[in-house]
Amino acid sequence: VILAGGSGTRLWPASRRARPKQLLPLAPGGESLLGAAVRRARVVPGVADAGGAARVVIVTAAAQVAATRAAVPGVHLITEPMGRNTAAAIGLAAAQLAATDPGAVLAILPADQHIADEPALAAALARGLAVVEARDGIGTIGIAPTRAEPGFGYLEVARAELGEVADVLRFAEKPDRATAERYVASGRFLWNAGMFLASARRILAELATHAPAIAAGVAEIVAGRASAADIYAQLPAISFDHAVMERAAQVFTIPAAIGWDDVGSWSALPAVRGADAAGNTIAGPAVVLRGGGNVVVSDDDTLIAVVGLDDVVVVKSGNAVLVIRRDAAQEVRDVVDELTRAGLTDYL
Amino acid sequence: VILAGGSGTRLWPASRRARPKQLLPLAPGGESLLGAAVRRARVVPGVADAGGAARVVIVTAAAQVAATRAAVPGVHLITEPMGRNTAAAIGLAAAQLAATDPGAVLAILPADQHIADEPALAAALARGLAVVEARDGIGTIGIAPTRAEPGFGYLEVARAELGEVADVLRFAEKPDRATAERYVASGRFLWNAGMFLASARRILAELATHAPAIAAGVAEIVAGRASAADIYAQLPAISFDHAVMERAAQVFTIPAAIGWDDVGSWSALPAVRGADAAGNTIAGPAVVLRGGGNVVVSDDDTLIAVVGLDDVVVVKSGNAVLVIRRDAAQEVRDVVDELTRAGLTDYL
Repeated sequence: VILAGGSGTRLWPASRRARPKQLLPLAPGGESLLGAAVRRARVVPGVADAGGAARVVIVTAAAQVAATRAAVPGVHLITEPMGRNTAAAIGLAAAQLAATDPGAVLAILPADQHIADEPALAAALARGLAVVEARDGIGTIGIAPTRAEPGFGYLEVARAELGEVADVLRFAEKPDRATAERYVASGRFLWNAGMFLASARRILAELATHAPAIAAGVAEIVAGRASAADIYAQLPAISFDHAVMERAAQVFTIPAAIGWDDVGSWSALPAVRGADAAGNTIAGPAVVLRGGGNVVVSDDDTLIAVVGLDDVVVVKSGNAVLVIRRDAAQEVRDVVDELTRAGLTDYL
Repeated sequence: VILAGGSGTRLWPASRRARPKQLLPLAPGGESLLGAAVRRARVVPGVADAGGAARVVIVTAAAQVAATRAAVPGVHLITEPMGRNTAAAIGLAAAQLAATDPGAVLAILPADQHIADEPALAAALARGLAVVEARDGIGTIGIAPTRAEPGFGYLEVARAELGEVADVLRFAEKPDRATAERYVASGRFLWNAGMFLASARRILAELATHAPAIAAGVAEIVAGRASAADIYAQLPAISFDHAVMERAAQVFTIPAAIGWDDVGSWSALPAVRGADAAGNTIAGPAVVLRGGGNVVVSDDDTLIAVVGLDDVVVVKSGNAVLVIRRDAAQEVRDVVDELTRAGLTDYL
């Protein structure tokens, strides 16, 4: 189950209302992040059904169905009437899949991640799905951290051994830098990459306990007793981490080193695309003189020239240009907010 | 006589081979620099002839004739076969105008300057032209400096009194910053704005003395004895300042305070267009958040968003985007050189 409902305002101006970030050709070779996610999902052991067809499902928002279908044809779509964060999206998928296959076991994967070592991911997922099958567990893939990153959520375990099941002792959201450094030095903390493993039944049971409004709402939608949009609009917009994972008993994790990175903002692009000798990550026609650490992206034939600047992000996409300090790349959201406030919808 | 032969690579990407900087709508209200220059020239006392028609002449390069004619219809054009710097351009104009009006008196004006106080310019030109008429003088308008600017040429006089004729004691090209500060503090130095006043006959006589190849070449062209292009291509490419003004005897200047600025690079745009409360100079659709001292120009409907940066220049024009530190705005030339070297002519 691939979650592809986000809009990705932090990747504006490439991401727009009509073209969310998972459909952008940001992966190496110009592949979309969603396309890469589907390709990776198809090779997870157990994903092929008895007939050999892949059982990959994408959950996406109604506004993105057409673009998503065009980008990854032939994949089954579950449509959210509107975005309501991951707890509702996962609940909807679990309820719909359980209705046709009560024993369904799910690997729930984000659409907007970069995985450098795909076989290692497949192995970790296979190991985790075996734990789900064996004891109806609920778990996650825990990424062995490669840097002290304050922007991520962390999982604490007693001992992190790659590929070996560990109990999650604690979820720790976005620590400060010093704490993140302590976490990484301890060897007992893993990045929470938002990849969840559980049976559909277990997910629905956990939601019934910890987020009953969501459990009841998605059951009603699947039963067809009322307008899906009316019900879904009332559901609390809360993440699956907060709603379930942080509260469930005996959550497990599979520590994994898979070359993972979140592709959440332009500052992450160098991790995905690499950098040249001067430390610049360039996609599209560009000239960079006397500067390093820049991220320069043009998605058409517009040439971008950057002179004498370090650590800036410059993106030209469609009818907009973004110029921002690389370490402030999260603040692109403020531009989107400002354009929304000003009613400049042509740029959204 | 308006000199409009330059290409203005420092204003790339707005200036291109086919659209030199004097045709860009950089003046307030979207007027082109050349359009503003012609408008100012028409009101100089003495420019109207007996019938009331303006005697304004533009010297431009053959490659720019069509665009120039379209931008300022109805103005007489003198065509240089190719750019050969200002000594040849002024020589060509003097020779052509002397052929039809041996007593012609010329005010030679650059196309790419900004003048905030246009009546003051007209008064200074009238005063200078009267000196030319009275004693066949050769002179220039000397701008009372408003800052210690190392990028300009200076004129030294014994005493600078606004509107009063002074003899130029010395030409001083681009001083270092400390010297420029000393110049300005002394009150005896003026900016050389490249505005020359003399009769056509005097100009040709000075060229015959100090740059005889140019004098002979333009005489041959006007006599029609050989291909203008062949002759012109052989002329030395030298500035009128170096060839004539620095060598002529008894050059005069009219000290003037006219709100003058050279529009030579993007860093000059704030002087021409002003800045908003945050110190940003913005032309075209833009959002600037948390930053000041920026120059942001978009010449179509492309929106430019700048976040968290100070003192950068961002220009989107046609199929190119420029991002450069404001204090390095001269280095745009290096981009043009790089594009030329790489054969990327679509961007030139």
